[in-house]
Amino acid sequence: MTTNSEISLPGMKVSIIGASTTTFGELWDVSPRALAREVVIGAMKDAGIMPQDIGALFVGNMLSGMLGSQEHLGAFFAEELGFHGAAAFKIEGACASGSLALHNAVNAIISGQYETVAVLGVEKMTDHRPEDVATALMGAGSSQERAAGCTFPGLYAILARVHMQEYGTTREDLAAVAVKNHFHASLNPHSQFKKPITMEAVLRSHAVADPLTLLDCSPISDGAAALVLTSDKRQATRDKKPISIIASCVSTDSLGLAQRDSLTELKATKDAATRAYKIAALSVKDIDLIELHDCFTIAELLALEDLGVTKKGDAAGLLRRGAFTLGRAPHVVVNPSGGLKGCGHPIGATGVKQVVEIVEQLRGAAGARQVSGARVGLAHNVGGTGATAVVHILAR
Amino acid sequence: MTTNSEISLPGMKVSIIGASTTTFGELWDVSPRALAREVVIGAMKDAGIMPQDIGALFVGNMLSGMLGSQEHLGAFFAEELGFHGAAAFKIEGACASGSLALHNAVNAIISGQYETVAVLGVEKMTDHRPEDVATALMGAGSSQERAAGCTFPGLYAILARVHMQEYGTTREDLAAVAVKNHFHASLNPHSQFKKPITMEAVLRSHAVADPLTLLDCSPISDGAAALVLTSDKRQATRDKKPISIIASCVSTDSLGLAQRDSLTELKATKDAATRAYKIAALSVKDIDLIELHDCFTIAELLALEDLGVTKKGDAAGLLRRGAFTLGRAPHVVVNPSGGLKGCGHPIGATGVKQVVEIVEQLRGAAGARQVSGARVGLAHNVGGTGATAVVHILAR
Repeated sequence: MTTNSEISLPGMKVSIIGASTTTFGELWDVSPRALAREVVIGAMKDAGIMPQDIGALFVGNMLSGMLGSQEHLGAFFAEELGFHGAAAFKIEGACASGSLALHNAVNAIISGQYETVAVLGVEKMTDHRPEDVATALMGAGSSQERAAGCTFPGLYAILARVHMQEYGTTREDLAAVAVKNHFHASLNPHSQFKKPITMEAVLRSHAVADPLTLLDCSPISDGAAALVLTSDKRQATRDKKPISIIASCVSTDSLGLAQRDSLTELKATKDAATRAYKIAALSVKDIDLIELHDCFTIAELLALEDLGVTKKGDAAGLLRRGAFTLGRAPHVVVNPSGGLKGCGHPIGATGVKQVVEIVEQLRGAAGARQVSGARVGLAHNVGGTGATAVVHILAR
Repeated sequence: MTTNSEISLPGMKVSIIGASTTTFGELWDVSPRALAREVVIGAMKDAGIMPQDIGALFVGNMLSGMLGSQEHLGAFFAEELGFHGAAAFKIEGACASGSLALHNAVNAIISGQYETVAVLGVEKMTDHRPEDVATALMGAGSSQERAAGCTFPGLYAILARVHMQEYGTTREDLAAVAVKNHFHASLNPHSQFKKPITMEAVLRSHAVADPLTLLDCSPISDGAAALVLTSDKRQATRDKKPISIIASCVSTDSLGLAQRDSLTELKATKDAATRAYKIAALSVKDIDLIELHDCFTIAELLALEDLGVTKKGDAAGLLRRGAFTLGRAPHVVVNPSGGLKGCGHPIGATGVKQVVEIVEQLRGAAGARQVSGARVGLAHNVGGTGATAVVHILAR
């Protein structure tokens, strides 16, 4: 472990002093307002601060306009949460909306504009017809892909096929991701899916987009997650040990797959990760746990390789042998929360929940899914099929 | 004039080195991509930089999801503009989306995350049925107002009625705003409306929401505007004299009017302006020109008062006597671009265009509408009926 705890983003240290997530799932009886209240009040309580301490609110959300005809979510939730006169913003970047909200919050803290801010990721998806949700989600895709009738399962199936052809990745390798992440989810009280699943169950589940079956796909979910960030040393040292954000990096690529040089990597992930390791002055070997964007099982394989955890083509073999699972040292633990696959994927909430999970892990407060002695964690959030990628590195 | 050119936001100076706007209007033959290309390439050319110099793109837009089913606009436009690997975000806050994008860009520059960034405000409204646009715009309102069938003209008409009752403001006072701003628009080659209008024309135009007539209302518009910001002193001193952003402040209030203590002021505007004057270490008397959010004529009266240009109830009398018009010293010139009313109001573009106008004015490059000797300008952008307000102060 070569982590230098003094390393910080240029200019000023950003501490996470509050973190909270709802249980993800089909939350039929809860409104977006109630989801937001639960997590933001939870994160403020965790931080020991009051609404009047919040200078700005950064909301990560994708679908409220297309599905709920409600925009202006910054002011909407600032009012709901009693942040009178605070600045407020909605930040959108498809499935990466939550971590893009966090990135802008980090910048705002370092800039000195605000001392303490809240980040809220929230999405309510199950109130709408699945076909409407699928159509709305394609709002993140390229015009060509939308015109061709592509869906995200179909696009990730193409990535899976190419990976199989190029590296001999098998159907079972993909399924191993689902088995691992559902096992982790079974240990997480906030997860949408509570039971471990077998490889046989994945292989025998309904076909969605060949080679991906239902259990290769992350679910439609409702949920919210929130963080409180501060530059205030008094707040940051009050109670619990604060967690530092030591890198926050964003990169983009073409919206559509057809415009990419390679279909065996997500370039934006590689780019964001390379920059993040450099800013944090550490290497992937220093990371104890990773929450990565496994919207489909193939996405976890790609991310393991693009984040540099393994060489290209090597992730499948390791996964097959049980690596990246809790309690299977020496490998980094990947998606201890259960990931998008097992914990659920309420679009705008996902990127924030990943960081909430890392905060809990670095505090040693993750219960049955605790990664032993975790000191450094990495969160990786993707929009579309890799058009946006965001990497945060946190340290205690 | 007590402006101190050394004053800057905490930590670092933010310079605008490129600015560009399309002509606003009904642009039937132009796509959002083409609008974005025109202004971002224009702003980069103005700044003398290349796409590879851009570290991040901040897109202000409200309606692309609800009207165009396209989200993920950050990556969408980053690809279109050739910003390979740059960070990219969509920032939304209803009609204040453009200036909220600028605010987050300012924070990003000061934080040191990026050296040079682009801000793009863009909206394409005329491709859609007017009733769909009106419905989508109410996505910025409160649930109560939407359920009650309110429209923004109707809500601003309530504000106008209360102002008339409280301060004796007349129908003619409102109309004077339209007459002034259309006069200014007639001098602006980028404006949607090219001809001056008479008070009689305003009074005799179709009723929209009593007391507001058609010519009290800003139009449905297409358009885009872009800025290039930098912290890089080499870039900022290369060619043209750079313009400094010396304050960037955001405040929020309740979404709905029913939750407000007062209907004769927009509290968020007062709050954002008070903070901006303090950060810039100047008073409203130091401002040479203001671009303010005149989505309806009553909005200009409220803003003049809430920004502290006049006392409550005094703006109408001054307007009636021709104050705030070009060439009518000693008063500050208000909306020399023609404002939302005369220049047009493509939602997400408006807040950025206001700042483009101020940049042109402070450079002395505003042609027939030049405010003589302008050194300090203020931009004021509102979301909804004042749920979000943003104030930027710029100085040369």
